[in-house]
Amino acid sequence: MRGCREAWHASLQARILRSTEDGELASDTDAAALATFYVTVLLGMSVQARDGASRESLRAAVEAAMRAWPGPGAPRGP
Amino acid sequence: MRGCREAWHASLQARILRSTEDGELASDTDAAALATFYVTVLLGMSVQARDGASRESLRAAVEAAMRAWPGPGAPRGP
Repeated sequence: MRGCREAWHASLQARILRSTEDGELASDTDAAALATFYVTVLLGMSVQARDGASRESLRAAVEAAMRAWPGPGAPRGP
Repeated sequence: MRGCREAWHASLQARILRSTEDGELASDTDAAALATFYVTVLLGMSVQARDGASRESLRAAVEAAMRAWPGPGAPRGP
């Protein structure tokens, strides 16, 4: 499980960093923290799926998780 | 683990329902889905804590998760 977690985290963090460089996300986005959050959600979904959670309830969890996705952010003032 | 999940879910769902009744959350909030999301986060954090994640990174995950918390919502139009 730890191997999965580290691979997911590294991959997500790299993708998020790329988005901050592209301006898709605010440049002060904390890529490590955001990656940790989505890894947390993935791990929790894995546990629930193994536990018999329905596809619908997992989908609802994803929808909620995506509300935590930051926007491009307002231009930063002085 | 399944026992924990069900107890957490029931308790969260009841609390969320109470908030929709009190007007703290929009009355059309999907309490079951929101409870599933937070249980997902709790489970994911449990896995990561067992895996040696730092307190700081877990706190960052909580902060991200709270961005998914719905507000009272705009008054609904016709």
